[in-house]
Amino acid sequence: MLQRIDHVGIAVAAIEPALETWRERMQMPLVHRETVTDQGVEAALLDVGEGHVELLAPLGEDTPVGRYLKKRGPGLHHVAYQVSDIEATLAALSAAGMPLIDERPRIGIRRSRVAFLHPKGTGGVLTEIVEPSAEAGAHHGEEPAGQTAGAA
Amino acid sequence: MLQRIDHVGIAVAAIEPALETWRERMQMPLVHRETVTDQGVEAALLDVGEGHVELLAPLGEDTPVGRYLKKRGPGLHHVAYQVSDIEATLAALSAAGMPLIDERPRIGIRRSRVAFLHPKGTGGVLTEIVEPSAEAGAHHGEEPAGQTAGAA
Repeated sequence: MLQRIDHVGIAVAAIEPALETWRERMQMPLVHRETVTDQGVEAALLDVGEGHVELLAPLGEDTPVGRYLKKRGPGLHHVAYQVSDIEATLAALSAAGMPLIDERPRIGIRRSRVAFLHPKGTGGVLTEIVEPSAEAGAHHGEEPAGQTAGAA
Repeated sequence: MLQRIDHVGIAVAAIEPALETWRERMQMPLVHRETVTDQGVEAALLDVGEGHVELLAPLGEDTPVGRYLKKRGPGLHHVAYQVSDIEATLAALSAAGMPLIDERPRIGIRRSRVAFLHPKGTGGVLTEIVEPSAEAGAHHGEEPAGQTAGAA
């Protein structure tokens, strides 16, 4: 049902100093940047094998990541698993008794389709499932660092 | 340098109810259980693709995971990346300015060799690197649920 760990999401105060850590020091290639205005977040995606680290910086204090930083400080924010059929997976998880935040998929970064499970059903772990877009699946190598508008 | 996300570590109050969530509801195969006495932790490893979820329950309140649970509650505890040469990776990370908790590898679960980076260098994210044992690399399928003594 869940194919692999797609990424870990890491809440940071600002993207640029975090890139110094993950791109320069840990040598993960930066493959995508995106500002998702309606989620109040600036995101940077770095490759590690077939998975990713997703750095998330808030666009303001009154955003989900801004509130998370204020409450818990920077650090691990969520884990995401790749799936091949997000509707079928949501239906199976719901049938198994897992409470969902998103009953239906929405558009995530790189035009993926994503949905979050409720942390009350996952031992406090904010858990996302991701069906990558064909485009993201075919994508390799570092993009120009320019930000694109959120696809959501 | 870092080959893939090897696992996410999740702090839980107790293993059995957590297995209900990750094994039964999320359908991840349980592949290993181990009590690591000198780390004060009971661990369960579940497969998701080539990676894993590592459930960690404290053996008592005055253990690293026990203190973590008291301070932050259950949830994401650390992320681990697989490496092929842990000494070389530690040397490269240290040379790049990353502060280390473990200057030398120690034995983790399933006889892997592991080392932790200090979260002050990784934006608050407790980060582990893992060089799997040949045995673990060849291992597939569900083990008997009996616990083995910690290899550490």
